[in-house]
Amino acid sequence: MKHLLISILMLILPTTAMAQNVILINPFEVPKGQEAEAIVYWEAARDFLQQQPGYVSTELHQSIQPNARFHLINIAEWENIETFKAATSKMRKELTQKRIEGMKFYPALYDIIRK
Amino acid sequence: MKHLLISILMLILPTTAMAQNVILINPFEVPKGQEAEAIVYWEAARDFLQQQPGYVSTELHQSIQPNARFHLINIAEWENIETFKAATSKMRKELTQKRIEGMKFYPALYDIIRK
Repeated sequence: MKHLLISILMLILPTTAMAQNVILINPFEVPKGQEAEAIVYWEAARDFLQQQPGYVSTELHQSIQPNARFHLINIAEWENIETFKAATSKMRKELTQKRIEGMKFYPALYDIIRK
Repeated sequence: MKHLLISILMLILPTTAMAQNVILINPFEVPKGQEAEAIVYWEAARDFLQQQPGYVSTELHQSIQPNARFHLINIAEWENIETFKAATSKMRKELTQKRIEGMKFYPALYDIIRK
C-alpha cells in the first residue's frame, strides 16, 4: 500500500512542479543618456526569446524616479530553469543586436515565497 | 461643444490616472546566513504596510540560485506615489522590528513600459 502511494505521488509530483513557472528578475544599471538604446536592446532580446520553447511572458519596468539605481528591471516567466538556460545560451551565440557599453545586468531566477 | 468635451475629459482623466498603480521593486542584498532573519524582518514590514492607506498587494521573491546577487526581491503595488511615501515614512518612525545588520535595499517605483 505504501509503495503504491509513493508510485502514485511520483507520477503526480513532476506535473505539479512543471506547473510552477520560474520567475526571472533582471535589474539593469543603465549608463546615463543611454536609456533609449537600452530599451532597443531589450526589445531585440525579447523578440528573440519569445520565439524559444518555455517562454511564457515578460514585462519591462522603467523607474519613475530618475536617480534609481536600476533604471530598468525586466520580469519574465519561463516554464522551467532548463528552457530558460537553453534560450539565453542560444541568444548569447545568435543575437546580433549590439550590447550597450557599461550596462550591467543581475539576472536570477526566483520563486514567490510570501504574499 | 469643444468646452463640454474638455470638461468631460477632465472629469474622466483623474480617475484613469488613479487606476494606474505604481510598482515598488526592492532588491535586497542579504548577508550569508541571515536569510531567515531577513524574511522575518520583511514579514514585520509587510504587516505594518498592509494596514496603511494606498496598499494594494505585495510578493516576496526568493532566488532559486544561492549565488544570486539579490537573495530576496520584494515586488509590491501601491495606489500612487504619495500613499507609498507616507506609509514608508511612517514605518521608519514606528516599526520596532530590528533591521538586519549589513542588509542592503534598493527600493524604487516603476511603471511597466513594454511587454
